[in-house]
Amino acid sequence: MKVGILLFEDFETLDVFGPVEILGRLKEHYQIDFFSAPGGVIKNYHGVAINTKKLELISEGVNIFIIPGGPGTRKEVNNKYLIEIIKQISASSKYVLTVCTGSALLAKTGLLNNRIATSNKRAFDWVITNGEKVKWIRKARWTIDDKYYTSSGVSAGMDMTLGFLAQLHGIEFARKVAFHIEYNWQEDKSEDNFSQQ
Amino acid sequence: MKVGILLFEDFETLDVFGPVEILGRLKEHYQIDFFSAPGGVIKNYHGVAINTKKLELISEGVNIFIIPGGPGTRKEVNNKYLIEIIKQISASSKYVLTVCTGSALLAKTGLLNNRIATSNKRAFDWVITNGEKVKWIRKARWTIDDKYYTSSGVSAGMDMTLGFLAQLHGIEFARKVAFHIEYNWQEDKSEDNFSQQ
Repeated sequence: MKVGILLFEDFETLDVFGPVEILGRLKEHYQIDFFSAPGGVIKNYHGVAINTKKLELISEGVNIFIIPGGPGTRKEVNNKYLIEIIKQISASSKYVLTVCTGSALLAKTGLLNNRIATSNKRAFDWVITNGEKVKWIRKARWTIDDKYYTSSGVSAGMDMTLGFLAQLHGIEFARKVAFHIEYNWQEDKSEDNFSQQ
Repeated sequence: MKVGILLFEDFETLDVFGPVEILGRLKEHYQIDFFSAPGGVIKNYHGVAINTKKLELISEGVNIFIIPGGPGTRKEVNNKYLIEIIKQISASSKYVLTVCTGSALLAKTGLLNNRIATSNKRAFDWVITNGEKVKWIRKARWTIDDKYYTSSGVSAGMDMTLGFLAQLHGIEFARKVAFHIEYNWQEDKSEDNFSQQ
């Protein structure tokens, strides 16, 4: 399956590269490409710079669309062009996965209306203002609603991506991937050590 | 402190971007740069491409030198130029951190001789052939020996980096960083769920 990862200025590093580590090693199943609205090099506040294709080229179709979070989402929720193209691509993709505040961008399209979703617990109160008809779940490591997967903050994206593999390939397959990257996978999506405080 | 991260063809994605997520967000303490022997764009098998500075420019000094692992280490252990420059930079750096099979590259320099170290559990038997005088510890999430920190496979680099923060800034500081990235940090470096099998 083709995996398209959305980048924008000040994306969160691990939101992107956690899922990339997990899906990228399964080359027989997943092929990853990076996209952004303007195309070209996209940087973040950790000093990471990644070359991207123009998002409109994705119209040829991706099967899995991944939307990370990061400080940049605060600006991008007001980028009407970006939200519109996220809406189009998400609607036509087989699966949509958001990490951290990436769910704010997806919520802004309206596609999460009447669906369950979660997000970063430190940014939760802001995130939910971007989708008042979304059934936000504060205490969840990640959520699944039909084709939409949303995760809590940063590291939770890895747990969700493994949960996604479990849905598509079975739990033993996902456990094997976690084992190979020596990751202590939190398998229970409803357990959330970060929702209090 | 200046952080220099070594890249080479087919580095492991998360070995690099786990530590980058953790140190990169502490901009008041750490400034990250990517280096490689040839300089320029370095790619890996997950389709990640990062622009790097030439490794010899690092001679101006870094405080923390990070060596990731990945399939590329199998080739690079035989790259005499790279091993020699890793040796020089490691000797002059205040701290050296290796992730996964990155410890094979550091072991090859001889700097780990008579020191404790660990590595990826799936590649362990190969790794230890690169440093017969190293006191290899099979069951460890990460190890500390003076200025040398070495971690187990892939995800363990994040636990080690948080352990490094705990040494320098105290355990509560490290816990706070883990909390902010919603990471279930395994704080005990001697606990290792991946050393059997």
